[in-house]
Amino acid sequence: MDITSILGVLLAVGLIFGSILTGTAPITAFVDVPSVLVVIGGSVGAACICFPLKNILSAPMVVKKVFLNKLESAPDLIEQLVSLAETARRDGLLALETRLNEVNNSFIRLGIQMAVDGTRPETIEDILRTEMDSVATRHRNGKSLMDQMGRFAPAYGMIGTLMGLIMMLSDMSDPSKIGSGMAVALITTLYGAIIANVFFIPFGEKLGFINKQEMMNLEIIVRGIMAIQSGENPRVVEQKLNTFLPPKLRASEEAA
Amino acid sequence: MDITSILGVLLAVGLIFGSILTGTAPITAFVDVPSVLVVIGGSVGAACICFPLKNILSAPMVVKKVFLNKLESAPDLIEQLVSLAETARRDGLLALETRLNEVNNSFIRLGIQMAVDGTRPETIEDILRTEMDSVATRHRNGKSLMDQMGRFAPAYGMIGTLMGLIMMLSDMSDPSKIGSGMAVALITTLYGAIIANVFFIPFGEKLGFINKQEMMNLEIIVRGIMAIQSGENPRVVEQKLNTFLPPKLRASEEAA
Amino acid sequence: MDITSILGVLLAVGLIFGSILTGTAPITAFVDVPSVLVVIGGSVGAACICFPLKNILSAPMVVKKVFLNKLESAPDLIEQLVSLAETARRDGLLALETRLNEVNNSFIRLGIQMAVDGTRPETIEDILRTEMDSVATRHRNGKSLMDQMGRFAPAYGMIGTLMGLIMMLSDMSDPSKIGSGMAVALITTLYGAIIANVFFIPFGEKLGFINKQEMMNLEIIVRGIMAIQSGENPRVVEQKLNTFLPPKLRASEEAA
Amino acid sequence: MDITSILGVLLAVGLIFGSILTGTAPITAFVDVPSVLVVIGGSVGAACICFPLKNILSAPMVVKKVFLNKLESAPDLIEQLVSLAETARRDGLLALETRLNEVNNSFIRLGIQMAVDGTRPETIEDILRTEMDSVATRHRNGKSLMDQMGRFAPAYGMIGTLMGLIMMLSDMSDPSKIGSGMAVALITTLYGAIIANVFFIPFGEKLGFINKQEMMNLEIIVRGIMAIQSGENPRVVEQKLNTFLPPKLRASEEAA
Amino acid sequence: MDITSILGVLLAVGLIFGSILTGTAPITAFVDVPSVLVVIGGSVGAACICFPLKNILSAPMVVKKVFLNKLESAPDLIEQLVSLAETARRDGLLALETRLNEVNNSFIRLGIQMAVDGTRPETIEDILRTEMDSVATRHRNGKSLMDQMGRFAPAYGMIGTLMGLIMMLSDMSDPSKIGSGMAVALITTLYGAIIANVFFIPFGEKLGFINKQEMMNLEIIVRGIMAIQSGENPRVVEQKLNTFLPPKLRASEEAA
Repeated sequence: MDITSILGVLLAVGLIFGSILTGTAPITAFVDVPSVLVVIGGSVGAACICFPLKNILSAPMVVKKVFLNKLESAPDLIEQLVSLAETARRDGLLALETRLNEVNNSFIRLGIQMAVDGTRPETIEDILRTEMDSVATRHRNGKSLMDQMGRFAPAYGMIGTLMGLIMMLSDMSDPSKIGSGMAVALITTLYGAIIANVFFIPFGEKLGFINKQEMMNLEIIVRGIMAIQSGENPRVVEQKLNTFLPPKLRASEEAA
Repeated sequence: MDITSILGVLLAVGLIFGSILTGTAPITAFVDVPSVLVVIGGSVGAACICFPLKNILSAPMVVKKVFLNKLESAPDLIEQLVSLAETARRDGLLALETRLNEVNNSFIRLGIQMAVDGTRPETIEDILRTEMDSVATRHRNGKSLMDQMGRFAPAYGMIGTLMGLIMMLSDMSDPSKIGSGMAVALITTLYGAIIANVFFIPFGEKLGFINKQEMMNLEIIVRGIMAIQSGENPRVVEQKLNTFLPPKLRASEEAA
Repeated sequence: MDITSILGVLLAVGLIFGSILTGTAPITAFVDVPSVLVVIGGSVGAACICFPLKNILSAPMVVKKVFLNKLESAPDLIEQLVSLAETARRDGLLALETRLNEVNNSFIRLGIQMAVDGTRPETIEDILRTEMDSVATRHRNGKSLMDQMGRFAPAYGMIGTLMGLIMMLSDMSDPSKIGSGMAVALITTLYGAIIANVFFIPFGEKLGFINKQEMMNLEIIVRGIMAIQSGENPRVVEQKLNTFLPPKLRASEEAA
Repeated sequence: MDITSILGVLLAVGLIFGSILTGTAPITAFVDVPSVLVVIGGSVGAACICFPLKNILSAPMVVKKVFLNKLESAPDLIEQLVSLAETARRDGLLALETRLNEVNNSFIRLGIQMAVDGTRPETIEDILRTEMDSVATRHRNGKSLMDQMGRFAPAYGMIGTLMGLIMMLSDMSDPSKIGSGMAVALITTLYGAIIANVFFIPFGEKLGFINKQEMMNLEIIVRGIMAIQSGENPRVVEQKLNTFLPPKLRASEEAA
Repeated sequence: MDITSILGVLLAVGLIFGSILTGTAPITAFVDVPSVLVVIGGSVGAACICFPLKNILSAPMVVKKVFLNKLESAPDLIEQLVSLAETARRDGLLALETRLNEVNNSFIRLGIQMAVDGTRPETIEDILRTEMDSVATRHRNGKSLMDQMGRFAPAYGMIGTLMGLIMMLSDMSDPSKIGSGMAVALITTLYGAIIANVFFIPFGEKLGFINKQEMMNLEIIVRGIMAIQSGENPRVVEQKLNTFLPPKLRASEEAA
């Protein structure tokens, strides 16, 4: 559960609503169904053109990832890899097979399995790195969907506002309606700006951030597996992998 | 047939039209022929300066690709390559010649043919990669045409609006015409924004996406051909190529 | 002669003029000499600060290149290189000297001359690639000049409009002049937008495109020369170079 | 203490306040609590979605770094490294152990310790460079937080202004309130622009700058350690490292 | 003396002033001291936060470089290097020592000195390239200062205009002052646009251009020194270095 993301959405949405409620205008002044349809429908339509169906359908999973991401902690990964390195050093690579069950991370399991099977180091690294690339591609697709929505929402907001202005301007016989006509016209721009800046743009940023963290984790794993495979000293493995961590999180580096 | 693209266009266009029809202004308030001419004609003119004639003429093919793209599925490609790898492993590279007829993909055919002919591996990879580059260049040209149209349409929309405003402002003798004058002026900006955000920008994005997918397919093929050529174990070939796929789509990797 | 560029300019300019002529305002409403001076003079001034004198003076040549570019066709280049490869294969490298007169392209001539002179392959490639780089640099300078003009023209347009608005606003004693004052103020923005979007931005794009095409031609030549120099089979040379072409333009690849 | 940063903030804030105080409007015309809440609260909310909690909580440390950064001077680092190189050259690598206490920089200490321990050069460079990467990542996260705040503040400013305009327009019964309604609406945009341009954008730039300087220092150290480890002549070490400095700061290069 | 830069500034400034003088409004309508303070003071303040003090203090030197840059001409450099190559070829590397006095360029002197001293080629290239990097870094800092000022000036212009609008709107009791209030508000935007587009943005571009030219010169020198050091034929040196020049400026290449 990513509490910060949820608090962030609540904070932004709450302040916008609060500011409307404390204002002089009734809340109905901010509701206009056709505007919602143009902004959301238009953005979804544009996204449907941009991406294949399966990417569009993955949108709920992508959004869920923003709120539910639980990355493995890098120090835990390192601890696990160092422990595997100790087993490999002490009892040989084959001994790792008995420890595969303890390992939850599928990426570590894949690497260890290949090491146990006697796959050549170049092949192991090649396969792990291609795997990393394809994880990154899948992440990029999710982020890209959010980014495009965050770009189309304000554009369709502007389209709706232009339509509202043209409607208002083409019939100015009743001057008292000019104000409310402009207000309705501006609502679409407001919707577009809110949808983009409260939801899609920050969602895209978070996904980019999660991706970077996960890539670092995968990089740690790849380097760890390669070091285990080549039978390096567990202390050296630990020292190498610890450099990925901020100093505070490091365990026993200086003692190495 | 790319149903999602078609639905996307229908959705965006439908909501814009629906929102106009349910509005108070007549639909004629949104029609202005000179505005259409300035926005579309101007953008096409600018594109004609940007690109050579043959790129401009390829525009219908490029747009058709947005709606009709049918990429080969990556798992099918991998299956085919693994099957070819099995033949090569069992009966030798020359045996692949008899299977060339089954292969639809011209890129695989080119690679297998060169392998059968005994072309050196470096030359095969060199030729296949140059071929990939030139496919990418052709894609980039198509995408670039869409991107430029998506950039010029709003610019010519603004030019049209400025012209409309200057006309309106230079004759304000009849105040009752100011509103309709401004409405007409804004129509060009609306046209530019719609043309860019419903058509050209999403088209460009889709083409970029198709290109990335096709490049991944070609990368799978290149790696597959090189592995076949060097007589690698079909299981290893499968494992390597499967890393390009999201986990769900993989067939028998874990069994490797 | 690049007909498309000329048609593009005529189309964009024609539609803008046509739309003015069919409008209600007299064409004089769109003419304001100080506005022209601020936009064009200001942009030229800014460009003079950005670039050394010789780049500024090369502007007419750069613009001429947009309208008069005549690139050699890539298939012709390949044919020529394959023919040279055949001579080299049949009669030795020295025999190429007698064919130098037939070769128009100075880049091919330079390469062949070095090959005939027995220059080492690394040196040949080094010199040809440095030459490519310096062609690219000269192109980039031309494109950069157009790009900067396309960026400064709207900026000076906005400066002119702000000046016009300040003039108008500082003397609002005669309300009937407000409209025409604003009209004049907006003209500078219109000029800036037209100059940028009809001329400089598309010119810059075209120059970028020409550069890419020419770089591809030079790349073909470099690879051709290197292959000739190392005495490769003319059929293999053809196959390698053909990969730069779209499938339709290829001659005899499959027959290789 | 980074006096310039503090003076910069005081200068920008002072001139804005001064210009308000010398103006005709009372300072209360520039105060609107809901606007502050929307701009600051909204930006913080969006940032909470973008980043994990620990990055948000590190914001005060990041801002503190803008005002309190004290980078070691590059010439001092070089002097220290050259002195260590002299010891290593004269008395052997092991003699460096006795000098470790004098060294404050933890990065130099880590490198020297590894050299003394007889770690292989490739491993030393590998570990130092991974360490550099992770320092750069931590810096990038801090800068990225500032950059995002500098991007969201104006966006939420615009959202607030749109909300204010809609409120004002939806009730125009009292024309005398239109002016003050618009004034209040514009305040949010002003807040967003000030917060972004006085604080977050410059803070992000400064952090980027500090990062570049620190990366240069680390690069100097890595090269210095590698040179010491391989027993290079201290004069050559000095000459190599001095090239990182502007000519004025170099000590004895020409004498080398 | 860079006449073009000076003419560029005079042209842009002259046209803006001329256009004000020929206008109907008095020049005082364009003068507002608090606006100047907000735009210039604010931008300087923001720059002070972005950069360390010594970069801010180097601003006059940076601006001076825009107007006084005198790059050595590349053909002269090549001639000098070829002449040194001839000496080295004829009389040996040591003979170059006697010619060091003729050489003004400190970069050539540094390289030749190291060659004479018998420094190893890898070390020479390493030192020269690090030197190039640090020249590029110093240039980048200067350009970056101009770029940031060109980005902050319009931002503070907008801040000033928003402040002016809020002041004007919060007291609309005297309608006759609305026009002049808006005029004053717009002046800050005008100042920001002029300062950015006449001075800082073009200055930044010029510095980028000077940097590229100087980097090319340094690249020529590095390649020349390396060729001299390895005792290459002066004709080959000339041919290699000439490829950096546009064809017109080359002396005797074809004769090689």
